[in-house]
Amino acid sequence: MTDAAPRFLRACRREAVDATPVWFMRQAGRSLPEYRAIRERHGMFEIMRAPELTAEVTLQPVRRHGVDAAILFSDIVAPLMAIGVDVDIKPGVGPVFGRPVRDEDDLDQLRPLEPEQDMPWMIDAVRAITAELGADVPLIGFAGAPFTVASYLVEGGPSREYGRTKALMLGRPDLWQRLLDRLADNAIASLRAQVAAGARAVQLFDSWAGALDPPTYAAHVLPASARIFAGLADLGVPRIHFGVGTGELLGLMSDAGADVIGVDWRVPLDAGWDRIGDKAAQGNLDPAVLCAPWDVVAREADAVLARAGGRPGHVFNLGHGVLPDTDPDVLTRLVEHVHSS
Amino acid sequence: MTDAAPRFLRACRREAVDATPVWFMRQAGRSLPEYRAIRERHGMFEIMRAPELTAEVTLQPVRRHGVDAAILFSDIVAPLMAIGVDVDIKPGVGPVFGRPVRDEDDLDQLRPLEPEQDMPWMIDAVRAITAELGADVPLIGFAGAPFTVASYLVEGGPSREYGRTKALMLGRPDLWQRLLDRLADNAIASLRAQVAAGARAVQLFDSWAGALDPPTYAAHVLPASARIFAGLADLGVPRIHFGVGTGELLGLMSDAGADVIGVDWRVPLDAGWDRIGDKAAQGNLDPAVLCAPWDVVAREADAVLARAGGRPGHVFNLGHGVLPDTDPDVLTRLVEHVHSS
Repeated sequence: MTDAAPRFLRACRREAVDATPVWFMRQAGRSLPEYRAIRERHGMFEIMRAPELTAEVTLQPVRRHGVDAAILFSDIVAPLMAIGVDVDIKPGVGPVFGRPVRDEDDLDQLRPLEPEQDMPWMIDAVRAITAELGADVPLIGFAGAPFTVASYLVEGGPSREYGRTKALMLGRPDLWQRLLDRLADNAIASLRAQVAAGARAVQLFDSWAGALDPPTYAAHVLPASARIFAGLADLGVPRIHFGVGTGELLGLMSDAGADVIGVDWRVPLDAGWDRIGDKAAQGNLDPAVLCAPWDVVAREADAVLARAGGRPGHVFNLGHGVLPDTDPDVLTRLVEHVHSS
Repeated sequence: MTDAAPRFLRACRREAVDATPVWFMRQAGRSLPEYRAIRERHGMFEIMRAPELTAEVTLQPVRRHGVDAAILFSDIVAPLMAIGVDVDIKPGVGPVFGRPVRDEDDLDQLRPLEPEQDMPWMIDAVRAITAELGADVPLIGFAGAPFTVASYLVEGGPSREYGRTKALMLGRPDLWQRLLDRLADNAIASLRAQVAAGARAVQLFDSWAGALDPPTYAAHVLPASARIFAGLADLGVPRIHFGVGTGELLGLMSDAGADVIGVDWRVPLDAGWDRIGDKAAQGNLDPAVLCAPWDVVAREADAVLARAGGRPGHVFNLGHGVLPDTDPDVLTRLVEHVHSS
């Protein structure tokens, strides 16, 4: 380790790097036998509420793969659970809510988040993780974006079509905006607390924003996401903005104010980067490619690197999360391959 | 009715029309109580194998909504079921296969389709439907595209990630191509038989093609889809090509040779049409919008019509299928609205 900042942070700032930094969304997760061993004994919220368990699963992929960044093990509904919203994460399903948001009264369950009181476990976990990581490997803070969190809250659980969400957004834009502003303020509070405790970058997950057309996104989602990035600007840490299927939205997501924009695999990285403008880009290998033989993985990774074309500011990642069936040895080999390319 | 061809066929050919034609994907389906009444008593394959039931559910939305086209009630796995492949359509799940395709031997189950012998029920249904429809309302023939059908065959059922499918495609391109060519030939046979029995247009459903990046689509999917459109060219009926999340692929899907290209709601229709080139465009209202109050539905439909901008060759439709919770009266009202706009 030299005096220079870690290559992940340098790439986020579009500074020169000695090698392309790489980490994987869902690197702390089901592809790892050591993670599955913990999950056999502990539920998702149980892991989040126990700082030593959160730290352990967050650090597992760093130890195993040698990735350039850790990401806090969490879930987009963690701040809702922290303020007492009736939510459960059902195995094989996802977050399920006891009282979906359908009208004004349902907003009452969304009081302002006070991180020190409401989720000391997350703050303690961040402190423990960053102490162990030291200066070489930054921790990325984690929060769900207002649209994606709201989609679960309004539907009452996971959805493929977002019928109720879009009906509320378009039919009750006033109520929708109040809902998103509350979620934005809580995301700001959570991320600020994570950075205060030692996180050196943040990622806002708007995983399902790609379900929206650009005019709808611009009118009903972008303002709340922009509020978050503005609310973090003074911290000086790289802010990453991520979604899936966002080819048409990349320019708008960039306008929302992050420093690094995620590009999923559907858009070739060079084309996606042109839509982002003068910012760093994160991505964009198809996670399903990792199920193919190694020579295919290497070839497709090389294609991503070739499309980055040496532009400053490339953070190598998958276009979405690691698939559960992925062989973890392939992930380790891919880290080495990207570093040596 | 005048001597002119129905407005749906005229729009497909980019000829002048008296009003924008409209039909809805999944118009024959769960939004209709009269359909649900039939489904309570009959399974999916049971309906397909009974020409009078197929005709009834195909005609229900034409009677109720006054749409400009009927579409044959079918499923993308119907030709597989017809040649004896071990497949079942499980309620709430989708098609599930007893023997997923993983290696050469698994291709043996995919013998050439002989429509007259293997699915006389489909041919009889098309004859019955077109006899009842008469000259005014064309019937659109139905087939699944090789990639989307193959994704079910390789995964063994529905998937969100297509890990096995992409691993086979990229890791065993020779086997993949043989699989897709067999599916393409059977799609050609099925669609030719439907046209011979009276269908006056065809739609090839590549619903999940949007899971692919453009280079992968161009190398491993486009050739088989192009083979189908070439294999129908002499019939002289409009050929429609449809998929979801295909913003990056619209140019390539157009290159595959169809006359009409479906554009989902993620891409504004004018932008999508520019990618298609000089062809007709079908779409592109977000189906979730139909869950919102009527004034929102009308406003969003008007936005689609405005983006069509009077270009010849617009077939109004949803960007994907009607959602089950949709109020059928909204569909009827939307048909009237589009016709009078």
